[in-house]
Amino acid sequence: MSAPLHVPHERREQVAAALRARLPIGAVLSDPEDTRPYECDGLAAYRQLPMIVTLPTNEEQVLAVLDVCRELNVPIVPRGAGTGLSGGALPIIDGVVLSTARLNRIVRVDDYARTAVVQPGVRNLAISEVAAQYGLYYAPDPSSQIACTIGGNVAENSGGVHCLKYGLTVHNVLRVRVATIEGEIIELGSEALDAPGLDLLAVFIGSEGMLGIVTEVTVKLVPKPAAAQVIMASFNDVVTGGNAVASVIAAGIIPAGLEMMDRTSARMVEPFVHAGYDTDAAAILLCEADGTPLEVAEEIERMTQVLEAAGASAIAVSQTEAERMKFWSGRKNAFPAAGRISPDYYCMDGTIPRKNLAQVLTGIEQMETTYGLRCANVFHAGDGNLHPLILFDANQPGEFERAEAFGAAILALCVEVGGTITGEHGVGMEKINSMCVQFERAELDAFSAVKRAFDVPMLLNPDKAIPTPHRCAEFGKLHVHHGAVPFPELPRF
Amino acid sequence: MSAPLHVPHERREQVAAALRARLPIGAVLSDPEDTRPYECDGLAAYRQLPMIVTLPTNEEQVLAVLDVCRELNVPIVPRGAGTGLSGGALPIIDGVVLSTARLNRIVRVDDYARTAVVQPGVRNLAISEVAAQYGLYYAPDPSSQIACTIGGNVAENSGGVHCLKYGLTVHNVLRVRVATIEGEIIELGSEALDAPGLDLLAVFIGSEGMLGIVTEVTVKLVPKPAAAQVIMASFNDVVTGGNAVASVIAAGIIPAGLEMMDRTSARMVEPFVHAGYDTDAAAILLCEADGTPLEVAEEIERMTQVLEAAGASAIAVSQTEAERMKFWSGRKNAFPAAGRISPDYYCMDGTIPRKNLAQVLTGIEQMETTYGLRCANVFHAGDGNLHPLILFDANQPGEFERAEAFGAAILALCVEVGGTITGEHGVGMEKINSMCVQFERAELDAFSAVKRAFDVPMLLNPDKAIPTPHRCAEFGKLHVHHGAVPFPELPRF
Repeated sequence: MSAPLHVPHERREQVAAALRARLPIGAVLSDPEDTRPYECDGLAAYRQLPMIVTLPTNEEQVLAVLDVCRELNVPIVPRGAGTGLSGGALPIIDGVVLSTARLNRIVRVDDYARTAVVQPGVRNLAISEVAAQYGLYYAPDPSSQIACTIGGNVAENSGGVHCLKYGLTVHNVLRVRVATIEGEIIELGSEALDAPGLDLLAVFIGSEGMLGIVTEVTVKLVPKPAAAQVIMASFNDVVTGGNAVASVIAAGIIPAGLEMMDRTSARMVEPFVHAGYDTDAAAILLCEADGTPLEVAEEIERMTQVLEAAGASAIAVSQTEAERMKFWSGRKNAFPAAGRISPDYYCMDGTIPRKNLAQVLTGIEQMETTYGLRCANVFHAGDGNLHPLILFDANQPGEFERAEAFGAAILALCVEVGGTITGEHGVGMEKINSMCVQFERAELDAFSAVKRAFDVPMLLNPDKAIPTPHRCAEFGKLHVHHGAVPFPELPRF
Repeated sequence: MSAPLHVPHERREQVAAALRARLPIGAVLSDPEDTRPYECDGLAAYRQLPMIVTLPTNEEQVLAVLDVCRELNVPIVPRGAGTGLSGGALPIIDGVVLSTARLNRIVRVDDYARTAVVQPGVRNLAISEVAAQYGLYYAPDPSSQIACTIGGNVAENSGGVHCLKYGLTVHNVLRVRVATIEGEIIELGSEALDAPGLDLLAVFIGSEGMLGIVTEVTVKLVPKPAAAQVIMASFNDVVTGGNAVASVIAAGIIPAGLEMMDRTSARMVEPFVHAGYDTDAAAILLCEADGTPLEVAEEIERMTQVLEAAGASAIAVSQTEAERMKFWSGRKNAFPAAGRISPDYYCMDGTIPRKNLAQVLTGIEQMETTYGLRCANVFHAGDGNLHPLILFDANQPGEFERAEAFGAAILALCVEVGGTITGEHGVGMEKINSMCVQFERAELDAFSAVKRAFDVPMLLNPDKAIPTPHRCAEFGKLHVHHGAVPFPELPRF
């Protein structure tokens, strides 16, 4: 689908009128003044005003939007809270944004079955807040959990600092209700162990709004652990730190969190949050244990031994809940801290086999010279999920382009060592070219065939996540000799 | 695809000749003497001689079989060890069986990354045997693990007594290589945390050979726990036992195994294996803890408290590894024990929400009267995965039919309480009609569309797992007023 440069007034009016005939007053926005807040998501370098924004309040209205768009052949971009970091909710000039913001009801919490049924616009943290009265919580905790919605989490298969032990969204969602482009409701998954037939729940989670609109989500709740403590370990070089991560896992321990930050990151956050980080260390590791007090004490003891044997230069263990929160505060505020020391930053998201941690960190260090930009490394080390923060100044000519090239080079290195181009932020429009690097033609064909199986008219978030053969061919022709993966050319703000 | 009653000699010779031109000597069987061993799988009541059996020894030969079958329009039934219980490997009269038996090489074990790369014909237990030298093992442990292959486990998303804590096949496989019906190789999944694009690995696992032929599997290995102990708890009625299961889970404990057997089962196995079971109890629970010795001691203590509070009439804890194995021996030999006391038995497989355990057990008890047959209940209680063993004598007129109706009624009850018609044995041909009960038309359409996305000519294990609209319509017309789900009419031995 090739987008026009301009949408005729008549077309906008035609689609808006059809939508207004089916939706309540205030649920259809078409004035640019009103649609401006929807022009980008968390990847704010890319912006596009949509033709129309819709705000349905129930499943029937979601189906109405789908009906109108199908009948008038209008592309649809679904949107949760707009906190996504890969441009998955970037609007289309002649398309409709379907916001789930008003589908924000917690339908029920079943403390016996340990499940919650919620609408897609419910915030991630709101689920844990309501479950707290039963001593339960929803485990996946992306950095944006105050704001992001469960519908967006489903679209991006979001993770968080605890997903090493508790899993990604796909491991914590039992069932979704989906409105299809054909205007039907289907349920995928079940509250039981396994669902017969094809596992379409898993294929739906992480599908970035390309297969259908989620109208209800059943999530798994887990008991709040009785106790938790975190170790902060210092290392004199990143290679030793990277190998220590492997040693913890090799010892058969699955920490509740296993995060690594390099010196640049520690020095970036320390003046900001005073987390008590060792800013002389080349890298620090945060290793959390949770469970019963006895389990926590034993695991902290075992992790301490492993980290010492792996060459930690200093070790501190949180002694109170306040201290545990303080240790985590630095990690959790790494992104805002980057904003304090650099006019702009670009948060990458790639994964690698744990054994290649040290090698990739060394590679990124070398790229800092190549691209003339600093990079702060914070990551979910236990999962091998990297979040390098590339620091740049968009007002300096060429820096944005170098930051993008730097990011693409990191992703290409991730693929080279057997990893992937995204851990938990999705492909969206940001990494669509990198998909050509990650996958063979036959694999991309399989993705496209499954996409078409759900969306014959190809109206649901088109041109995201799955590159066309044409795009990969163009991309290969233009860029393969540069040895790095450039980003798609799209309207920039 | 409607199957003929007879395959012309010329057709068999045409297909066999085309296959022999591409495969080594001995890899194409067409004489009924040679193909007889392939006429059924573990659901031995249903048998069909295939036209031809192929035994490829490498990926290239798998592609050759697919090429020939695609060009000559021959349906293909993939087969692992043939231990499946739902007839997923039941041959087609004019089709080719593609056996993975000779693809039995363990390619490599990486003790650092904790993965093993194996060909699909490698036996489940063989992976753990080779991983044992590194203190690792492959977690999913179906009863048939001595014989069943990893390829078959992938096809059926197999579980086992430890899957409550360690997950099903889908949670323990990182990547598969797949030969498509188009004759291409694709890789689904990755060794990293998450794969970008659609999660086609999850949709492939449990797809019962309908999407492609797996040629290589990368599995996750886990460290052998240092210690393990099992509790055997007795209950005076099944309802109290069922509620005790819920109490264990509600206490925030995830046992390494949580199995329940009713009195019929305990009395059936005790004379056979002398496991020391309480044959006076209405139900016994086996609750296992594993981990470090300290963790095990603490969890056994907590589980004991919970089980006592839930009304256990007696509790025994294994004090040695030999005693632990003895306690498990009864559970693991339940199926052979059924064969000792009854000429025939029919093993069902359904799941229910844990909270409905007591209700469903009571329902099954009532059905014993309705259908005039005994039923021994053994199940993965922690997962809500039931394996009722319906005891019958096929030589008594009408008993087989009553056993099938009994089984179908159990599945219908599972669906009624919010469960599913299969936990880990797959749909195959056995439960294809029950799929019409479980799913709405739009949901079955979604399955079919994804099936077609992978297999345009519809040659891969056709007529299994996903019912056609025609089948559901016929089935509904014929049977909906009976209130039970009959089984498909297929050739019986």
